[in-house]
Amino acid sequence: MHKYKLTIAYDGTHYSGWQVQPNGISIQAKIQEALAIALKAPLTIVGSGRTDAGVHALGQVAHFTHEKVLENKLLASLNGLLPPDIRIKSIDEVDPSFHAQYSATAKTYRCHLYLERVLDPFKRLYTYQVHRKIDLQLLQKAADAFIGTHDFTSFANEAHAGSAAKDPVRTLKRLDIVPEEGGVQLELEADGFLYKMVRNIVGTLLEVASGKRALEDIERLFVAKDRRQAGMAAPPQGLFLIKVDYGPK
Amino acid sequence: MHKYKLTIAYDGTHYSGWQVQPNGISIQAKIQEALAIALKAPLTIVGSGRTDAGVHALGQVAHFTHEKVLENKLLASLNGLLPPDIRIKSIDEVDPSFHAQYSATAKTYRCHLYLERVLDPFKRLYTYQVHRKIDLQLLQKAADAFIGTHDFTSFANEAHAGSAAKDPVRTLKRLDIVPEEGGVQLELEADGFLYKMVRNIVGTLLEVASGKRALEDIERLFVAKDRRQAGMAAPPQGLFLIKVDYGPK
Repeated sequence: MHKYKLTIAYDGTHYSGWQVQPNGISIQAKIQEALAIALKAPLTIVGSGRTDAGVHALGQVAHFTHEKVLENKLLASLNGLLPPDIRIKSIDEVDPSFHAQYSATAKTYRCHLYLERVLDPFKRLYTYQVHRKIDLQLLQKAADAFIGTHDFTSFANEAHAGSAAKDPVRTLKRLDIVPEEGGVQLELEADGFLYKMVRNIVGTLLEVASGKRALEDIERLFVAKDRRQAGMAAPPQGLFLIKVDYGPK
Repeated sequence: MHKYKLTIAYDGTHYSGWQVQPNGISIQAKIQEALAIALKAPLTIVGSGRTDAGVHALGQVAHFTHEKVLENKLLASLNGLLPPDIRIKSIDEVDPSFHAQYSATAKTYRCHLYLERVLDPFKRLYTYQVHRKIDLQLLQKAADAFIGTHDFTSFANEAHAGSAAKDPVRTLKRLDIVPEEGGVQLELEADGFLYKMVRNIVGTLLEVASGKRALEDIERLFVAKDRRQAGMAAPPQGLFLIKVDYGPK
């Protein structure tokens, strides 16, 4: 058996998210359908993790196993079979021990926030327009408060928060705020993210930066370990999974 | 009566073009509908010129007249009434002599060409993926051959080419080629463009740059004054109307 790693970009606007589910069309299902046609056999791919409906990716990673060595033309065939809002960027053979989810050592997400009044029509599906007044200095201080190793239970939704088997401690290596046209982008890198953790962090950041929540509250939320006390999840459309790393931790 | 100038951005993907027409939904119609609701009376707006179905705009301009002075909140009201892929960027009162089409002294278009194999899914509606091999040096030479004052009849479609009243001479002030991620962008500035002139120029440029047509042929096409001899029109989705100028010529 041979093991292959797919690197995938997608516009999540028209999908119910990464993961196959009974209702709605998922990105995983679309790729599996294309692979089944190209390889003439049904197969399952394993992603690095799910992304929510409306969340985009520049560098999602998935793996699958296949009994034969793949032909070079498979990349072009798959992209011909897939809709143009999902593109396979590369297919690489990897060691049999590779696992798209469990071998990942870090992930990077980017979240675009639009802070001006008239939303650029070309960004409407790729940024979150914040209608509250945002204090950028407070936003920076709130971002700094998230960096480091913490129990992120207050920022994780049910899929993981209720599961005792999952360790809710994660290390947020950086949360950079970069100005861009019309607003800012947040770039978050961690050794891993719990379910909805990025959107919940961004929601809480915006509450602090708009004066709705005290800066000191972030530290208290790490101790509280209670999802209900943290901020609302930010909407999905500004969020991009940028890359998944598989290097040394 | 008061005269007003609208500056408009739109994603043309889902529209039949700028101009009101019997079949399909136009951007002009959408703005007129929103204005009719906001101002409680039907009215007609006059654009700087039409854009084709699928062509986008960052700075389309239109004018209309109204008997009353407009309230400041009209901009927010209109954007609330319009779909998010059409945004009014500004509304300014102008001199009664202003005319969005006839007062224009220059227009700038940008055309994005994607030259790599795997099309970025986020650019699929905003760039033209060229599948032929493009020689960038030839592209530059072909672009240079278009600059200056010429009879552009060979590059104008019926709406103007058949009309003796229209002067087919235009001055292309610049045609810049700027590298960008995945390809290049062409930026064209002229005192005016005939119907489909940008797309026809780009189509001919690509024929020269892919070796399908001789560089010297461009000069011959200016003399021939025959639309059928020039290249195919490039598709619309990479094309943006960037701005319309109303300064001194």
